[in-house]
Amino acid sequence: MVAAPNTLGIIAGSGRLPLAVAEAAQHDGRSVFVLALEGMAAPEDVSPFPHGWASLGEIGKAIKLLKNAGCSELTMAGKVPRPEFTKLKLDARGALALPRVMAAEMRGDDALHRAMMTIFEGEAMRVIGPAEAARELLAPYGAIGWFEPSEDQDADILHGIRVVLTLGALDVGQAAVVCQGLVLAVEAAEGTDAMLVRVASLPEAMRGTAEDRKGVLVKAAKPHQERRMDLPAIGIRTVEMAALAGLSGIAIEGGGALIVGRNAVAAAADRLGIFIYGFAPEDYPRE
Amino acid sequence: MVAAPNTLGIIAGSGRLPLAVAEAAQHDGRSVFVLALEGMAAPEDVSPFPHGWASLGEIGKAIKLLKNAGCSELTMAGKVPRPEFTKLKLDARGALALPRVMAAEMRGDDALHRAMMTIFEGEAMRVIGPAEAARELLAPYGAIGWFEPSEDQDADILHGIRVVLTLGALDVGQAAVVCQGLVLAVEAAEGTDAMLVRVASLPEAMRGTAEDRKGVLVKAAKPHQERRMDLPAIGIRTVEMAALAGLSGIAIEGGGALIVGRNAVAAAADRLGIFIYGFAPEDYPRE
Repeated sequence: MVAAPNTLGIIAGSGRLPLAVAEAAQHDGRSVFVLALEGMAAPEDVSPFPHGWASLGEIGKAIKLLKNAGCSELTMAGKVPRPEFTKLKLDARGALALPRVMAAEMRGDDALHRAMMTIFEGEAMRVIGPAEAARELLAPYGAIGWFEPSEDQDADILHGIRVVLTLGALDVGQAAVVCQGLVLAVEAAEGTDAMLVRVASLPEAMRGTAEDRKGVLVKAAKPHQERRMDLPAIGIRTVEMAALAGLSGIAIEGGGALIVGRNAVAAAADRLGIFIYGFAPEDYPRE
Repeated sequence: MVAAPNTLGIIAGSGRLPLAVAEAAQHDGRSVFVLALEGMAAPEDVSPFPHGWASLGEIGKAIKLLKNAGCSELTMAGKVPRPEFTKLKLDARGALALPRVMAAEMRGDDALHRAMMTIFEGEAMRVIGPAEAARELLAPYGAIGWFEPSEDQDADILHGIRVVLTLGALDVGQAAVVCQGLVLAVEAAEGTDAMLVRVASLPEAMRGTAEDRKGVLVKAAKPHQERRMDLPAIGIRTVEMAALAGLSGIAIEGGGALIVGRNAVAAAADRLGIFIYGFAPEDYPRE
């Protein structure tokens, strides 16, 4: 295979997002190459695309694969758990980068992302966010689907944004669940799905149910976050879990969060009777 | 039974705290009367003390029982889940108070506590905090038990205090787990025990283990919190759950948090190899 010029490299962690990015970029007529991370990306998911495998510590191998594939731009998508550095499979380049990456990791997710980007940018690959790589994934403004937030739900959205941005400023997490003014759950290391399971297990007196939906999931990027990385994302599973938790809807930042499979997400939301709403931050001023 | 003058009334929710308060007050030579909340306090726990039962909505009955027992001071201790108002058993006085209490409940835990206090203070009973009712429960400053925080653990304590106070200002929760600079979990409606179970279920790469303890549980009161109510508390179960989650220790506010069963807590901490540390807020300035 001759490497296509201006190929988009996609470093793929786990989850559906990397594939959604690859599909959207191909849909835009662009050639893609997926660098699948061992133990994270699923073989059956990456097989439809030109791809290669590397461990998180094989930075030399990753760079070589991406360059051979003609990648001039690069994006990272999907979940990458914090590595256990002592157990990491390293190549020479990875070993060289390790001290800096470990030091960055101690300063939080965001510093880790920046350190990884710096390495690839030093190899003349421009690092772009999944949003730039695949604009059709970006959440629009307003309601996606049939349902819209009520005035009460809007108040929960506002409080949720306040909580999430406050936590985000401390590099804690990107999501919270607010129900009639009360914060039911806040996301840290466990992730959004686990947080929604937790809400579903709270006593019914505190939360909504399928018959009487209450409460909102709010996801928003950390205020100082490197916007090219780790944008808040929702997919059909998020919608299903939010419905199981009895929530009335999901609010994400319009133009700032990603929706994987927008049509399927909208259809699921309509079927389950919940709203998906892309808010404009300027419409929700913080106190 | 003739009512003793200056009896301490203890409105008892669930958990060990109300009984610890009753024991400590008796230990100080004071007579006590436990008003056990139906569905929350356990009959076998309250039976050693003079006591009576009322539902959360039977405010008239509660006032009568407390007055008949000669209570001039009153404290509330233990967990009281947010009531499902439509299912509450009400007496006339409870029905009268309901609109105000419901409105307060919408503004958060703290407003709810203040509304309840106002009702009892209107009946000439002075409401005091469990800390004032039973000073021996208050956490001391410094290490309780054998182990002390290391310099690294001290940095986690500092970050944990920052996170908990920030969240507390939004009336979210009182606890967080920080491990080597990273926030692993934040408490909202689920409570501290459930949060520790969650940390125990995170991948081992992210957290400590019994062999290699890492991370700190920090509990602190909300900054604007009504200090007479709902103080952060730990007991032997907290110590055991923290140990299961692989943590290196627990930090609470000296003079501002409660320890139920201090000797047993210290013994468990020593046996499990974790520290319990009462911090002075002024030694941990927020950025």
